[in-house]
Amino acid sequence: MKDIQSQEDHRRINIKKVGVKTISYPITVLDKAHSQQNTIASFNMYVNLPHHFKGTHMSRFVEILNRYHGAIDIGNFHNILQEMKDKLEAEAAHIEMSFVYFLSDADNADNLKSRRYECIMHGSLEKENDLEFILNVPVSIPLAKQMATGLPQSLGQWGRVVSAVKFRNFIWIEDLITLIEKAVDIAHEKASAPGENSMSVESLSHQIAQSLEEEKAIKSFSLKVENLAEGYSTFAAIESLA
Amino acid sequence: MKDIQSQEDHRRINIKKVGVKTISYPITVLDKAHSQQNTIASFNMYVNLPHHFKGTHMSRFVEILNRYHGAIDIGNFHNILQEMKDKLEAEAAHIEMSFVYFLSDADNADNLKSRRYECIMHGSLEKENDLEFILNVPVSIPLAKQMATGLPQSLGQWGRVVSAVKFRNFIWIEDLITLIEKAVDIAHEKASAPGENSMSVESLSHQIAQSLEEEKAIKSFSLKVENLAEGYSTFAAIESLA
Amino acid sequence: MKDIQSQEDHRRINIKKVGVKTISYPITVLDKAHSQQNTIASFNMYVNLPHHFKGTHMSRFVEILNRYHGAIDIGNFHNILQEMKDKLEAEAAHIEMSFVYFLSDADNADNLKSRRYECIMHGSLEKENDLEFILNVPVSIPLAKQMATGLPQSLGQWGRVVSAVKFRNFIWIEDLITLIEKAVDIAHEKASAPGENSMSVESLSHQIAQSLEEEKAIKSFSLKVENLAEGYSTFAAIESLA
Amino acid sequence: MKDIQSQEDHRRINIKKVGVKTISYPITVLDKAHSQQNTIASFNMYVNLPHHFKGTHMSRFVEILNRYHGAIDIGNFHNILQEMKDKLEAEAAHIEMSFVYFLSDADNADNLKSRRYECIMHGSLEKENDLEFILNVPVSIPLAKQMATGLPQSLGQWGRVVSAVKFRNFIWIEDLITLIEKAVDIAHEKASAPGENSMSVESLSHQIAQSLEEEKAIKSFSLKVENLAEGYSTFAAIESLA
Repeated sequence: MKDIQSQEDHRRINIKKVGVKTISYPITVLDKAHSQQNTIASFNMYVNLPHHFKGTHMSRFVEILNRYHGAIDIGNFHNILQEMKDKLEAEAAHIEMSFVYFLSDADNADNLKSRRYECIMHGSLEKENDLEFILNVPVSIPLAKQMATGLPQSLGQWGRVVSAVKFRNFIWIEDLITLIEKAVDIAHEKASAPGENSMSVESLSHQIAQSLEEEKAIKSFSLKVENLAEGYSTFAAIESLA
Repeated sequence: MKDIQSQEDHRRINIKKVGVKTISYPITVLDKAHSQQNTIASFNMYVNLPHHFKGTHMSRFVEILNRYHGAIDIGNFHNILQEMKDKLEAEAAHIEMSFVYFLSDADNADNLKSRRYECIMHGSLEKENDLEFILNVPVSIPLAKQMATGLPQSLGQWGRVVSAVKFRNFIWIEDLITLIEKAVDIAHEKASAPGENSMSVESLSHQIAQSLEEEKAIKSFSLKVENLAEGYSTFAAIESLA
Repeated sequence: MKDIQSQEDHRRINIKKVGVKTISYPITVLDKAHSQQNTIASFNMYVNLPHHFKGTHMSRFVEILNRYHGAIDIGNFHNILQEMKDKLEAEAAHIEMSFVYFLSDADNADNLKSRRYECIMHGSLEKENDLEFILNVPVSIPLAKQMATGLPQSLGQWGRVVSAVKFRNFIWIEDLITLIEKAVDIAHEKASAPGENSMSVESLSHQIAQSLEEEKAIKSFSLKVENLAEGYSTFAAIESLA
Repeated sequence: MKDIQSQEDHRRINIKKVGVKTISYPITVLDKAHSQQNTIASFNMYVNLPHHFKGTHMSRFVEILNRYHGAIDIGNFHNILQEMKDKLEAEAAHIEMSFVYFLSDADNADNLKSRRYECIMHGSLEKENDLEFILNVPVSIPLAKQMATGLPQSLGQWGRVVSAVKFRNFIWIEDLITLIEKAVDIAHEKASAPGENSMSVESLSHQIAQSLEEEKAIKSFSLKVENLAEGYSTFAAIESLA
């Protein structure tokens, strides 16, 4: 009786999401060169609740988390999402898994670059399963002239590319990184041609978008290109229409 | 000719947003107690571009920024937004102004609390002007027992409340802070009653939502309540239906 | 000739340190429960150079880094330090390895806590080898009353303990964590006794210092205890005389 | 009696520092162009305590803080430090005031650069007063060729210079910034001469050290130059012998 009244008082209010953030676990990720690599992931898990949902359900959330404690991986995303959706009577369930992926640069032993890429795997279940992969690729400034010393000297950081892709078919993280880094190289080359300006966020966006579009394994994508400057940055954001 | 072709090749691609991020300037904010206070703001300025927009327009952006250089304030948000929209032939224009607001705690000289609140003012112009104010209120843990020493000792941090409101009428930042902090006090009191659990993210969400709903100057709102724990946090998010 | 002159012009100047910061690699750490765990480390490597050292030696640095590329571990700290000292004709060589250590909480399956500890291993070689281990232990607020629901609910964060220890004998990371967390429990208990105030940074410092002092495997230590409050924090720092 | 015993048990332990961190207040800083500017400072205040000091003194600390609440400025550093030293019977007292200084770039209206510099003023009182000023100057990458469009386009970030100076005579923050930025320009020019490599952390360190040495108002200094790269950074640190 009291509950119904308190609900009538606040017809405009509804809890939309409840969840847990930044739980860290060691995980294993598929690696093209070595079949798997060990890294650390940080998890966000939350559900969208329906409009007239009453009461506290964090306890059911905790039950699910405890059952999968330390064993949450992309392989059982679907099972956990389904259980979250059922147990919490939710409209949708979400898992975000953030981790750092390392590229083993076997061909490039002279390179000091640690080749460290921040990634997020975002799985969600509403009526259908949905999987989005977000990749952060740092962009450095290529050397304009050959160094006398042969040192892997750096000219500094140009900026970064954050791409979010949905897949039609499986693709290695390594291959997606290569795709984007090749597009960066092409954009750098075009910008260094006589009569051209320095590489802009728009030109790099278009170059990468073109490469992503041509890759058959990718169903759709959005991307953001950011150029660091002293005290500010410029950016351009693009997304595929699909 | 070449341009048209390259466009036909990439029909699925469109630049959605271009802009500039984290330009910092000192600004002046209205303050109920002292009429104004000086603080530092960080600005993001960007536009949504139409589908078939061709070419680079960062130069026009820079012209606008240079004209208002160091004098961007909420008072001229509308003028800058209109100019951004016109000059860049954009569908929508956005300014996000992040700053820290300090509460002068005249009544409370014994209090070490610096009463520092992170705020964002987000102005946008599409067909109509729209203004959203985002306020971050830290939540501490009240002392369960009276301290013998009378020291302003802390038991630590419980979490924080991030609320985003749109206004019907003018309201002082100070009054919005007071509204939320009073709701936090009520929720703390309810949770400390015999037979009750410790304050949950859901119960605090509902308490604050109720207070925001009752404030006539507020047209609509969304809010997120976060409880820090060791190694993770829990959260609940609510929004008004309006 | 020119070099000697330029040196005479600036007799007051000497380069003290050169090095490389935040190179990340996956590493393996000894783990009491599972014999080893995979985690990610970030490395700083630098040398102290003598007063009248002339010229650029980053190239020699890079040679060493490339030779140990991706295989820097506590097991070969001494070899790398010796090589850094020799090749760079340095007075001292340093490696700082930062990583996150996870505790597998087998006894405590109901616990949402991810038990994640930030650690730094700092090896240095001047005349002798020296190894210091720095451990960051978060301190939460214990529940004052038994929860009806039995949920692992949190009251929030009290603060943290950062301890830096040098060892006489080997000690597991796990055992050092347990030593500190037990001291925190004792300090919490003492503070909750009738007539006592809430736990202070000084009382917690003394409790932990006493426990570290009693551990025979520890040669010397320093520690810093920090209590988070709303908008500021208080701290106390202690070190052993040894 | 009990106190003496507990002290004998722990002869190796002494509390070295107690204090308060990151209290934020708006402050006013002297500005060459406009006589003063408003900004926000974050304060750390702490004391070094003698070896056999007994008991908790945070309450005296809080009394001092409350008396100067919101009015801590470089003008009354000495008075606050003296009071901290006396009331807490301390060996030394410290205030660290961190703030952001903005350069009003009147001559350079076309420049998007917000010219934002992080600064720390560190005052300490042991037997004598001591004042150290720490300045963070970001270093960008100069354009190699004149841009056709005349846009203030950026090539990215090279790194940063952190200098800590003690003064013989008063010097404007603005003049210290100019001194360092001129040294950066000279180092960039030297590095772009035919046959030269890109600017190294060592060469930039030497160039800035030379300029600081020649400035009569500066008594002594230390500086650290850092070059950002993809995934790591290199650095060189120098200090004057004085």
